[in-house]
Parts: sequence; structure tokens; C-alpha cells
Amino acid sequence: MEPEPVLSRDARTGETRAQIGVEADAAAVDAAVRAADATRDALADRPRRAALLRAAAETVEARADALIAAADAETALGVPRLTGELARVAYQFRFFAGIAEDGGYLGVVIDPPDPAAVPPRPELRRWKVPIGTVAVFAASNFPFAFSVPGGDTASALAAGCPVVVKAHPDHPETSELAAAAIRDAAVKVGLPADVLTLVHGRQAGVDLVRHPLISAVGFTGSIPGGRALFDLAAARPSPIPFYGELGSLNPVLITERTAAARGAETAAGLVASYTLGQGQFCTKPGLVLVPEGQAGDELVATATEAAAAAAPGALLDARMREHFLAGFAARAALPGVRTLVEAAAAPTGDIPQAVRAGLLEVDADTLGPGQSAGGELLEECFGPVTVLVRYRDMAGVEAVLGRLGGNLTATLHAEPDEPDAARWISRLARFAGRVIFGGWPTGVAVAPAMTHGGPYPATTTPTTSVGGTAIDRWLRPVTFQTVPPELLQPELSRPS
Amino acid sequence: MEPEPVLSRDARTGETRAQIGVEADAAAVDAAVRAADATRDALADRPRRAALLRAAAETVEARADALIAAADAETALGVPRLTGELARVAYQFRFFAGIAEDGGYLGVVIDPPDPAAVPPRPELRRWKVPIGTVAVFAASNFPFAFSVPGGDTASALAAGCPVVVKAHPDHPETSELAAAAIRDAAVKVGLPADVLTLVHGRQAGVDLVRHPLISAVGFTGSIPGGRALFDLAAARPSPIPFYGELGSLNPVLITERTAAARGAETAAGLVASYTLGQGQFCTKPGLVLVPEGQAGDELVATATEAAAAAAPGALLDARMREHFLAGFAARAALPGVRTLVEAAAAPTGDIPQAVRAGLLEVDADTLGPGQSAGGELLEECFGPVTVLVRYRDMAGVEAVLGRLGGNLTATLHAEPDEPDAARWISRLARFAGRVIFGGWPTGVAVAPAMTHGGPYPATTTPTTSVGGTAIDRWLRPVTFQTVPPELLQPELSRPS
Repeated sequence: MEPEPVLSRDARTGETRAQIGVEADAAAVDAAVRAADATRDALADRPRRAALLRAAAETVEARADALIAAADAETALGVPRLTGELARVAYQFRFFAGIAEDGGYLGVVIDPPDPAAVPPRPELRRWKVPIGTVAVFAASNFPFAFSVPGGDTASALAAGCPVVVKAHPDHPETSELAAAAIRDAAVKVGLPADVLTLVHGRQAGVDLVRHPLISAVGFTGSIPGGRALFDLAAARPSPIPFYGELGSLNPVLITERTAAARGAETAAGLVASYTLGQGQFCTKPGLVLVPEGQAGDELVATATEAAAAAAPGALLDARMREHFLAGFAARAALPGVRTLVEAAAAPTGDIPQAVRAGLLEVDADTLGPGQSAGGELLEECFGPVTVLVRYRDMAGVEAVLGRLGGNLTATLHAEPDEPDAARWISRLARFAGRVIFGGWPTGVAVAPAMTHGGPYPATTTPTTSVGGTAIDRWLRPVTFQTVPPELLQPELSRPS
Repeated sequence: MEPEPVLSRDARTGETRAQIGVEADAAAVDAAVRAADATRDALADRPRRAALLRAAAETVEARADALIAAADAETALGVPRLTGELARVAYQFRFFAGIAEDGGYLGVVIDPPDPAAVPPRPELRRWKVPIGTVAVFAASNFPFAFSVPGGDTASALAAGCPVVVKAHPDHPETSELAAAAIRDAAVKVGLPADVLTLVHGRQAGVDLVRHPLISAVGFTGSIPGGRALFDLAAARPSPIPFYGELGSLNPVLITERTAAARGAETAAGLVASYTLGQGQFCTKPGLVLVPEGQAGDELVATATEAAAAAAPGALLDARMREHFLAGFAARAALPGVRTLVEAAAAPTGDIPQAVRAGLLEVDADTLGPGQSAGGELLEECFGPVTVLVRYRDMAGVEAVLGRLGGNLTATLHAEPDEPDAARWISRLARFAGRVIFGGWPTGVAVAPAMTHGGPYPATTTPTTSVGGTAIDRWLRPVTFQTVPPELLQPELSRPS
């Protein structure tokens, strides 16, 4: 059987740009995994890993023009956004270099012996070791920051785990260029290039998750695709952790007082957030609770105007465009749903694939508990659309929140002196991994205190894929009991 | 349909002692989960949780006589061992009270805003919150320390998670007494009794793992039972973490020099460890690499003598007794396996169910790579038996280690100045969560630096079920972004 070609396509025109390679068959996946796995001992050198991450930052910066040009053609995300995304990637490599160097993530704990403990305690020395070789699935919507040179790769390499990336079919050329940059960086600091290997193809992803030498998986993508791979990871003879980020509605609650005090500003912020990058963010606000009454009406009117004026643009690929338009139409057709701005194809000469953003409105009563209606409105619709849910009182808000699953984020727009503000913050934290006050969920800072994760389906495990503690996913604890310190690594060998 | 009775049996005689209750049907499981889940808000009070754990320690101590009498009848583990186990439980409750009080486990990180970060960083405040209501499956072999009042319960309550325990059928009366002690302790400190509820029955366990209000599962038991429940947890519409400890061979490597220097002492230590509690520890050394030659021969002869002299005793139940005797016979019948001491039924007047310990020997060549033979020798056999594997050289050792899966422990008996000692420590850490030098794996200290976990099948996740960090399993991270500190809990409200 001929191997399937891997094609790079222009997202704006839908046309094929070039053949990048062929899809990996089982033997090619096996070779990619074995090559990466063979670099584990070399990656055990922590200072060298930090050097690798710094060199990777430099290399992607040096090759920014080529990377951005390829990514812009393949994703239509535009040069300004992609320039920012690549800067984020370089920042993130350096951030994890610092974390690797610091070593705090190793969680070293040394217990002196304690004969009074029950049972008596021998001397114990604990730290965390790399979990093994990991598979990383690139995301469609961030060709850099959640793909080959993204957070999963940076945190796994920082932890000492070789990485096999499954490229996303939306940006194969970008993936190859980014992989080459990291592999070249490895060689530059005296590590094998194979600390990162790359495979293309849907079946290659399946083979990767099943491979006995793969010890964990990082994934960013859709619920159906992510769940299928999660199920494979769980069904292995030796199950492995599957760190998947699958989908999120990212609800926003705007109080009556804020609608009255800052309605226009809030409406403008909302539309900018949900149309950013053509709504193709996992943190896009997809459901917005707006009060009934005059202040809410004015906010909705302002949002409608801004949404209608939003610039059309291409989505990442033709399939997503179809899904988006069909998803919008299905939601608009639900009983009780009002179309404020209709999402539609909006082809231009330059961008035949362009669409324009949509905006929907519905009453909270339609979404309350026991309502079978409106289920689709509580599911993510990838692309530039959001649903304004008009509520009469906080009981109506609670009824809608009670129907939500796990989320990456939840946002509150309220006045700090509102008596219930603390209670709503705490309520939103019940189902979300990040609670934002007075801001917008799009934009996820690379920082020690960041959480990008949440109850299922936001993520499949209680972990984060962004920020300092993302490294914890690629580690497992080991304790040494009464082992003479001189037989241990320097980090563990201080007196107890 | 009549509900199945829950019967307490005498482990020494096999006779029924009493009916303790009935198995929980689906409605009873639902009620137990809802009752526990309704205590989440009450458990959010961290100082009160610490008080609960201290009160639980006091209550089990005050009721020690009744608890130990029930457990001794139901498990035949003996009063001295059970007295020690209950002391461990009380120590562990107080240990986790200290952890809850200290709050370090919350992992509070506060990032000030940083406009120079890429992307710019808003103010972020992160900590960990309780994951929700958890299910705990009690183990057969530790009626206290890995059952109702055990480490999973103590760490989950410390984290702020209500607990629903699925009792083990081997000790239903002990389970009821222990649950009552914890529930009474809760009431004593002003918490609802339902912070812990208890169910009996195999199907009840299945229903528990599937219940939508259960957010995580702790399990200690066998590979088949644990894997079936792991699969259920993964197959839920919303999968939840399943923290299972499933099985471990706990290999021991004795070097030539140690066999020569301290062979008799090492043999005595080994037999004491593998026959402790009739070999019913998850950390029982089940495979021991002993050098060929005179020093090894002498060590084996001493071990054989000690094993033959070990006191017979009852196993936890009739099914385990059958499995043990059948498992021993199957291993003894494998080609190349020599029976040094035959495990067999050894009934006495007092203990009609007693068995005596066995000891097997095989050459390393039989277990090398590419050998399909000997597979059973590389699987845990629950009960008082171990396999001495005679090796010619370190290549022979490596060949055997290369066939092992994940383990809770691995032990090295070597001289600290042996040139390869550090390399062997590092090799053992590749597949085990705890590496012991010059000691024995049985006995797991309750300590900040403990790891009781390892690659599958030792545990299903890279976590520990004993020691300070066991609490991490019951938490998920949440970040608050630009939330005014006065709207947050005191732990998060300090200036950034």
C-alpha cells in the first residue's frame, strides 16, 4: 500500500501548497519512539536540558520569518498574531529552562530517621524522576504555542522526557520547521537531535498512544478526538496518563450593576474576546449571562453592533468552517433562540474561505434544570460565535450554571463591593480551573500560578497544561530508603 | 429480590460469626453518596478538618479493644500486629491533621502582574481545592491502615473531600466499628457524621465508581479487581481519577559480596520479611536475586532452614488460601523450579485454616529475555512464598530485571563501596517507586518523603497512597485572575 501523502494547504484559499512528506506507518512510528526513547539517559543531565530549552528559544527566534510565513499560510491566523505566538513560545522555552535549572519542581524531601514514629521511620529521600518518553498531540489552533514547540514539549523536555510529536494535519510544514529548530538546538548543546521526533497521520497517533515505550500523552483538541485517544490510553495493557485538554464553554457572568456601570465597555471587551483569532481559542467565552432589563438590553445592543462590524476571516480549515456554520445554524434554529448577528460565509477575493462572526441570544428559562432544550447551547461551538443568556435573577443564573460540565475558565464581571461577589467567585471555582474577575478568558499567561485545566471535559486529569506546574505531568515520585547519600544524585545527597 | 446478607467470618475457622447488615443496592449507594456529598461545604473549614482527624485518632484509640478483637477474628492477623496497625492509623490521622493545619499542601502561588512577560501577565493567585466526594475501597490485608480508617480516608478528609468507603468483605464488622468511630469523631467536632459513609457489596462498589457525584477513587487490592474498576472509572461519561494500588513483586538483589559478608543475617531478614503477616503485604519481597556459588548457597541454606521453621498461620480468607496453595503448586511445577520448602495446609486444633510458608528456587537463565517460561514467577503470589533466583553474573540480573513490570519497591543488599552500587540503585529506580538499601520492603513509614506507588501495575497513576503527598490525589488546582483579594479565602489574600 502506498503511504498517504501529507499535504500543506492554504487556509485562506483551501488550495494545496506542497507535499511535506508521508504519513508514518507502524514501523515509522516505532522508529520515532525508539529513537526518542534512546535519548533518555542524555536528557538526565538537568543543566543541559536548561541549555537545550534556551537554545530552542534562540533557534525559533532566528527562524521566525520562515516559521511565521508557513504558519500564516497554513492557518490564516495572520502575521501579527503568529508573531506574538512565536514570542510566547520563546518566552515559554526560557521559562521552563529556569524551572529546570531551579530544580524546585523535583520536590526533594529528606526525612531523617525517627524512631518515635509509628511505625519507626527510616531515613527517606524523595524526589521526582522523568516519567519516560511522552507523546504530544499538536493542536490545530495554536501552530506554535500548543504544537511542536509548545507548552507540552517545553515542559516535558524540562522534566527530562523525550518527546514524540504527532503533527496536526492543518500545519505540517510549520511542524517540520519547528521540529527541525528544536532538533538543531539539541545538537547545538551536545544532545541527540532525537530528543524530539515528529510523526504525521491519524493512524500514527493511534499507534503512538498504544506504543509500549510511551509513558504519558499530552493532547489539546476536540472532545471526540481526545476522548477516543484517552480511551486507548486507558485500555492499554499498562495504562498511561493521558493529559488531554478537550473542550470548554468558558461562561461569563455579568451582573446587573456592572451592566449599568460599564455596559458599553463590557460589550466591546466581550466581542473582542470571542472573535479574537476568529473565535478559535479553547478559552473563547461561549456563554454569557446578561441581566434582563434596560442595562442588559443596552449591553446587548452594543455587542450586536460590534459583532456585526467584526472583520471576517478564514477558519483553520474547511472542515472547521463547515462545522462552525452548521453549528451556528443548529443553535440558531433551537426554540427560543434569537439571532442577533448571523454567522455566514463571507468570501472575499483574497480570502475565499472567510466567514463572519455570529451572535445569539436566549432566555435563561430555556436553559434551566429539567429543560431538555438548549443542550447544544451548553456545548462548545468552535469559531466566532457566543450565546447571550438573559437572566431575570440570580436563581436563573444558578439554574444555568447547574447544567454546566467542567470548564477551563469562568469569568465574573461584577463590582468588587457587591455583597454576593465573593460567593459568585467561589461558585464559579466549583467547575472551572481559572476564575477571572473583570477581564476576559482569552489569553493564558505563562506563569508559575497559572492553571489551564478543569473538571472534565475541560481536561481529563486535575492538572494544568500551561504554567510552571505543567511540568508535574511528566514526573513520578521515587523514594530512596536508607540509601547511602553518596550513591545518590547530588540533589538528594545532603545530610538529613 | 432479597438483599444479600453481609456476614462476618472467623478467618481461623472459616465459620460465620454474625450477620453485619445487607449489601447496598443502587438506591442505598446513591443515598450514601448524596449524604457524604452534602457535607462538602462543612468540610471546607480547614481547622475543623484537622480537629476531625485528631478526634478520629482519639476515638479509634479509645475503642481499640473492640476494633482489634473484631479485626483479629475476621482476619487472623493476631493481636500484636493489629495493635501496631491501629497505632499506625492513629499516628496517620494526626500526621494528616498536621498537614491540613499547615496548609503547605495547598500549593499557594501568587504572581504579581508582569507587563514584560509574553503575553503580559495579570495578577494570578493559585491554590488547590478539594476534588469532590471520593470513593475508597478497603483492602483485605490491612483491616485498619488501608481500610475504613486508613491512609486514603485520612488524606481525603484532610484535603476536604467527603469519603464513601466500600468495605472489604473480609472484615465487615471491623469496617462498621471503624466507620462509627470516624462518624462519632465528626459529630464531636461539630461536623456532620456523613463526612464518611460506608457501603457493603461487590455491586455497590461498581455503582459507587459509576456515580456521577463521585470525583475520584482510591483502591488497594488485586490486579484483576483493580483493573476492572479502573476500566469503569475511565469509561464513565465524565472519567475520574482512579488511584489504584494493584500488585507488586518487590524484587530484591543481593550481591556476591553481601552474600559473603552477611549471608546468614540477610537470609534471616528475608524470611522474616516475606513471612510477616503470612506474606500478605503488598510490599512482600516476592523475587530475590541471589548469586550462584558458595556464599549464595549458604545464604539459601540458611533461608531454607528459617522458612521451614516459620510458624504456620491462617490467611485472610478461604479463597486466598486456595489461591495461595494453587499458586505455589503451579510455580513449583514449572520447569527448572526447585522446591526448597513446600507450602501446604497445616491445620491445627485452634487454626484449622492454617498454612505453612513455602520457598522456591530457580536459575536466572530460566527467566531471561526471550524465555517464555517462568512468567508466573514474575507475577505476585499473595501469601508466604518467595522465589530465589540464582544468578551467575550481573548480565543475568539485568536479563531478569528487564522482564519486570512496575513495582512498589525494589531492594538492594550490597556493600556501599561496591563500584556498581550507585548504578544498581539507579537501575532499580527505573521501575520502582521506593528503592531500599540494606533493609526490607515490608513496613511503609508514614512520612513526608514516603512514596508508595510505582509504574503500572504497582499503581495506576504516578502518585503515592502513603505519606504526606498522598493528599495531592484529592485536589485540583484553581487560579484566580485579577480577583480582588478581599473576595478570596485568607490563604490567597496576601498582597502579591
